[in-house]
Amino acid sequence: MDRLRAWVDGQFSNICEEFFHFLRFKTISTDPAYLSEHSRCTAWLDSLFREMKFKVETIETSGLPLFYAENLEAGKNVPTVLVYGHYDVQPVDPIDLWKSDPFEPTVRNGNVYARGALDDKGQIFFAAMAARTLLAVDGKLPVNLKFCIEGEEENGSKGLSEGLGLLKQKLGADYLLVVDCGLPDADTPAIDLGGRGIVAMEISLRGSKEDLHSGLFGGVAYNPNRALAELIAECWDEDGRVAVPHFYDDVIEPSEEEKKEFAKAYGKGHAKEAGIAAFSAEQGLSLMEANWFRPTFEINGISGGYTGAGFKTVIPAQAQAKISCRLVPNQDPKKISRQVADFLKAKVKKGIDLEVKVHQGARSFRGKADSLLAKAVAGAYEEIFQKPCLKILSGGSIPIVADLQDAIGAEVVGMGYGLASDNIHAPNEHFGLDRFKKGILTVARALQKMRDSR
Amino acid sequence: MDRLRAWVDGQFSNICEEFFHFLRFKTISTDPAYLSEHSRCTAWLDSLFREMKFKVETIETSGLPLFYAENLEAGKNVPTVLVYGHYDVQPVDPIDLWKSDPFEPTVRNGNVYARGALDDKGQIFFAAMAARTLLAVDGKLPVNLKFCIEGEEENGSKGLSEGLGLLKQKLGADYLLVVDCGLPDADTPAIDLGGRGIVAMEISLRGSKEDLHSGLFGGVAYNPNRALAELIAECWDEDGRVAVPHFYDDVIEPSEEEKKEFAKAYGKGHAKEAGIAAFSAEQGLSLMEANWFRPTFEINGISGGYTGAGFKTVIPAQAQAKISCRLVPNQDPKKISRQVADFLKAKVKKGIDLEVKVHQGARSFRGKADSLLAKAVAGAYEEIFQKPCLKILSGGSIPIVADLQDAIGAEVVGMGYGLASDNIHAPNEHFGLDRFKKGILTVARALQKMRDSR
Repeated sequence: MDRLRAWVDGQFSNICEEFFHFLRFKTISTDPAYLSEHSRCTAWLDSLFREMKFKVETIETSGLPLFYAENLEAGKNVPTVLVYGHYDVQPVDPIDLWKSDPFEPTVRNGNVYARGALDDKGQIFFAAMAARTLLAVDGKLPVNLKFCIEGEEENGSKGLSEGLGLLKQKLGADYLLVVDCGLPDADTPAIDLGGRGIVAMEISLRGSKEDLHSGLFGGVAYNPNRALAELIAECWDEDGRVAVPHFYDDVIEPSEEEKKEFAKAYGKGHAKEAGIAAFSAEQGLSLMEANWFRPTFEINGISGGYTGAGFKTVIPAQAQAKISCRLVPNQDPKKISRQVADFLKAKVKKGIDLEVKVHQGARSFRGKADSLLAKAVAGAYEEIFQKPCLKILSGGSIPIVADLQDAIGAEVVGMGYGLASDNIHAPNEHFGLDRFKKGILTVARALQKMRDSR
Repeated sequence: MDRLRAWVDGQFSNICEEFFHFLRFKTISTDPAYLSEHSRCTAWLDSLFREMKFKVETIETSGLPLFYAENLEAGKNVPTVLVYGHYDVQPVDPIDLWKSDPFEPTVRNGNVYARGALDDKGQIFFAAMAARTLLAVDGKLPVNLKFCIEGEEENGSKGLSEGLGLLKQKLGADYLLVVDCGLPDADTPAIDLGGRGIVAMEISLRGSKEDLHSGLFGGVAYNPNRALAELIAECWDEDGRVAVPHFYDDVIEPSEEEKKEFAKAYGKGHAKEAGIAAFSAEQGLSLMEANWFRPTFEINGISGGYTGAGFKTVIPAQAQAKISCRLVPNQDPKKISRQVADFLKAKVKKGIDLEVKVHQGARSFRGKADSLLAKAVAGAYEEIFQKPCLKILSGGSIPIVADLQDAIGAEVVGMGYGLASDNIHAPNEHFGLDRFKKGILTVARALQKMRDSR
């Protein structure tokens, strides 16, 4: 560990320079306006990994390009680890709330501020730097390493998902290390044993051919904004449970033991830090249970009518919402989206046209705490933090993991250095450079441990 | 009438050229970005009325400039009529639904398409052209004429409202002709005996300091979009009445006779033409009653979270709505907005911060069917249409009229040639040039009749 640390310390300013270069690519995957940034970014990843003697390939998919790299020189006697992460990022709006340009990394108080600083460029980059460190310090990698860095994690992982049948041979590995996770807090190490699934929908309600004057038609036309609000309000019962019939049918209740184990690691302070004073957990559930063991129904966006400066007395022709549900193990995204769509169609005000568009969904995934990889990562964390490594789940989703795990038949573990206060998916996303450095060391040390414990 | 018509026919292409020039000024009063268009427009009105031998003045107010013109050469033995209208227009979004540039008037099938083609540039311009026609045909005006053409009717008439104390002497008149109204349909003449008042509010709900990741905080944070939807859904009871306590307390019920009289003129086909299949009238009320005799509670705009292309799995920090209530005689805008604000504050989800911003309100107004002006306008309509002139009310609002009427103590009548299908306040606003021409003749003939009937 000392030799690893010494090498990283010596190289750290060079590493950061390259990291910041990576952050400048505007790889927003949900907005087609940024398409060309993706190929520029994969070309850059190509040269980064080529320098580390990886065989590299940018794989065109039905969606955005997937970057792949492998170094199998460790040979047949050691396991193969597939490292998964993504180079795409979330949109940046509301842009006016950013204190510095989201695509010009800026260091303030030891944190680098940029879109993707953490999620997931920062994390996949420390994993890549772990490989570089091991090559420099040990002269070779302790295990066979494959990197799968996709370009549309934030947009449903379409390309990788649809290409899995063809790619599963290439991506084949004994272990799947998902480097897109976080810690309960900056001083507490934890391995991540699962994330929620997700399914997203867009709904649109139409009440008239064109926008109407709210005087001439006020009292006459049923306002789609009102119909939308009333429809959304129907989606929960009085205990705060999602009111869609059969929504919870497939949910597996955690055991008392599981609840106790995971409660140790749940970051209860996050809600307070974020300024939250109104909570959405179902009646009788802890925030940990609600966030890690229960599905959600969330209105990510809502819009209708005039929303600009000043006022416009309009009854809009249309109102719309973007809805997503986080899912837990055993829930099927297609089944859930069908249940939600049926419910909304049954409940919408008669005479208002409802359209529902369902996006690509993803299942929840779970890993085992006693796999070789899980133990190696936990061991590396414990060396760095000098304290026991906890087990966590994530309320978030990494859409492809369940399918990827099924396709290659590997044991999965999630790791990472994200904190709830890092503003991922929000303005002023940032990552502490101290944690970034620990990320390099954790991955490098974990891979050494995998070799050594065999 | 024949001489009036012959002169207008001869001059019509010149008149349209000037009209289209007027339509090109981007006088959107709710958006500060268009401020300079207002002074360019009043300068143009200045030269238009100066050529007609009016004494002109652009009056600076606490809001946007007010254009004033008077020609009192008819003398003390005839009445003075104040013609009220406005040169400002509504915003143009959603701009992509316009078939031609909203500020480049385009004629298709005998209609001119432009923002303000009808509301209210088209109408105030035909009134101005009526004065020009009378001067050309009769050599002088039959009555004393004043024009008050304001620049912020679409934004609460702040300047004129606050300046009324100082201006009431200048604007003093026996009759107030509001040229900002419509007809039940293209073949049915009607005088307008009143419009609804209005009060507008903006509300904003905050649930956290910054936008949150819907995975990390889903099941934890109460989503402001949800809180907003639930709050809006509370605003009506199951009979479709506004649920705000005391909201209807001051409403005066129309008599059976009034209902019968006004039902004759109510355009029942408009809702069907507009493609409306869901209605908002309270249980047991006709659309006419709901539109002309009842107040409304309307969500003109709603927004929160990510509403751009694709998807963003966010729990927004804030969600907001723009609300307006149309009011009937005897309802006080300040009292209503206070009641609404109190109700919303009582009902909002605990822990969600609610801010309410109340805009300038306006009372409803009513005119008498048997005033000299009302009879003259009705008579002019009957000459042109060769059929009886009906009486209508308007569901819309002309914010300043009630205060203006009180300030100058005049009898008020509304007239105009708008149709519900003209898309005012919506994309592709238009005005039939045949109706525009009839507008000139109606005003000119009505003013002659006022002189003759004395």
